[in-house]
Amino acid sequence: MGGDNAPREIVAGTLQAAAVFDARFILVGDEKQLAPLVEQAARDAKIEIVHAPETVAMDEAPVAAVRRGAVTSMAKAFELVRDGAADAVFSAGNSGAFLAFSMIRLRPLAGIARPAFATIWPARNGPMLVLDAGANVDCKPEWLVQFAIMGSAYSRAVLGVDKPKVGLLSIGEEEGKGNALIDAATPLLADAPIEFAGNVEGRDLLLGSVDVIVCDGFVGNVALKLAEGAGEYIFGALKDAATTSLAARIGAMLLRPKIREIRGRMDYREYGGAPVLGVRGVSFVGHGRTDAKAVVSACRAAVRAVRQDLVGTIARAIAPPDEAEAAR
Amino acid sequence: MGGDNAPREIVAGTLQAAAVFDARFILVGDEKQLAPLVEQAARDAKIEIVHAPETVAMDEAPVAAVRRGAVTSMAKAFELVRDGAADAVFSAGNSGAFLAFSMIRLRPLAGIARPAFATIWPARNGPMLVLDAGANVDCKPEWLVQFAIMGSAYSRAVLGVDKPKVGLLSIGEEEGKGNALIDAATPLLADAPIEFAGNVEGRDLLLGSVDVIVCDGFVGNVALKLAEGAGEYIFGALKDAATTSLAARIGAMLLRPKIREIRGRMDYREYGGAPVLGVRGVSFVGHGRTDAKAVVSACRAAVRAVRQDLVGTIARAIAPPDEAEAAR
Repeated sequence: MGGDNAPREIVAGTLQAAAVFDARFILVGDEKQLAPLVEQAARDAKIEIVHAPETVAMDEAPVAAVRRGAVTSMAKAFELVRDGAADAVFSAGNSGAFLAFSMIRLRPLAGIARPAFATIWPARNGPMLVLDAGANVDCKPEWLVQFAIMGSAYSRAVLGVDKPKVGLLSIGEEEGKGNALIDAATPLLADAPIEFAGNVEGRDLLLGSVDVIVCDGFVGNVALKLAEGAGEYIFGALKDAATTSLAARIGAMLLRPKIREIRGRMDYREYGGAPVLGVRGVSFVGHGRTDAKAVVSACRAAVRAVRQDLVGTIARAIAPPDEAEAAR
Repeated sequence: MGGDNAPREIVAGTLQAAAVFDARFILVGDEKQLAPLVEQAARDAKIEIVHAPETVAMDEAPVAAVRRGAVTSMAKAFELVRDGAADAVFSAGNSGAFLAFSMIRLRPLAGIARPAFATIWPARNGPMLVLDAGANVDCKPEWLVQFAIMGSAYSRAVLGVDKPKVGLLSIGEEEGKGNALIDAATPLLADAPIEFAGNVEGRDLLLGSVDVIVCDGFVGNVALKLAEGAGEYIFGALKDAATTSLAARIGAMLLRPKIREIRGRMDYREYGGAPVLGVRGVSFVGHGRTDAKAVVSACRAAVRAVRQDLVGTIARAIAPPDEAEAAR
């Protein structure tokens, strides 16, 4: 029920995902709105509807949303994962509330200081995981190390990277050019059980060659929104330019398929959702503008994360095996 | 003598600037290299050469560069400003050293906690000043207030904005969505003698409508390099796309003038240099890739800053009038 296009696009994406992935899907929300969108045949086969009478508003305070209990579709969806009735949860709704539910209903894994939002960036050399993207605005150095470990696990399990290289976002590649957080985190990352590639810079978020970039959630969120804005800025300027002369109009027409392809590559919908890493379940929050295509992408990532035991992998990487077992 | 294209492009830009602006220019550096690039007629009229035998290396530690004394071209140029023989200094050299010289040779104005690097962003609605861009990586809330006051003064004096609107870079427009620094700075900015427009987000660095955006130097530098990278990423992809089919090739050819225009608008060379604000002199540091065009832009900004008494304006805005007078 969350996001600008719910429930129509969410349901449409789920139907497409059900046709492609060997998985079952549970739509959680107002049955009166959902049922007409799903044919009986689909419901019989792979799609179930679980009724929840209320929804979390996009601007609702996260804590207030959690306090309302399992009457909302988001709360109910998280209960299904917590109780083992579902393996993963996706929503395009209120991302602050989604994070709060991930923390409170699914709870952090043993040894995890702070779960993180991770986003997939369409870097020139392939998908790059950037975390934290806004869940933790003031970070301790050790949290960045955990982000690196969680990000490496995700990169391996879901993106299929064998030995993910991790970069620390700073303002110069040399050591000692960052802020206090970076200075403290650098030696910890060098000692961590990851492939630490050293410090990277802002340009490396799009042009770099590492697989995972760690940063605090304030910087990560500013960068994410700036990158979105840069695409809008440049493609908007190209579109305006195309109206200024006949030659430009024809040029833009001929280039349009390629421009679309580039925009598509930069499109958040290719990657569907931002995983919340470090909690006892697979959870992805989508962009407010999520459409059917983004839902399919999120479902693909969720299916892979479940199949590859992402949660168990992170648990074992953070805590020693005994503790990780006990904590599950 | 600084930057990738020195001294040839620096001198070429200075000759162009001398033809346009009613100002005199002093080239500081190795006379043997500089003299052959400047005709005697120009030297007689508006261009002087001051010899300095050594140069600051691009990778030299700032403190080491300052300790070497007035043997380097950068040190000598700053001495000319400090001693009143010049009104402004520009270099495309080592930016860390340039900042150190600004601080130590020109010294901060009375009441200024930390001078800042400011950069001009080509936002959709016009030039936007963003500071700090990397001089101060860990900032106190009061410093951001001073950045706002200095940025407003620059926007008025050099960019000609009557009542510059100032935004605070955060991760949500609502109060309370930032980090500890933002939470502490917001009420201070609301009380400051500026036109505070509230919090802005990463996308507003390119798409927003404020005139000045303040942030700490870590975030500002990550954002600056990301924006440069985003341009390289998108225009690089367009260039690649243009080779993939005949239609795309023709389309790219027809659109090329417009693409160049958009790239030009995003080009750092339009704005020439980053002013160091808060010191007792006008100083601009250029990009390492500075060419003649960037030198002209920097000279234009420097001439305006001097004519509009930028330094005095900032001094009066930060300290009460009596103190500001006494401090000059």
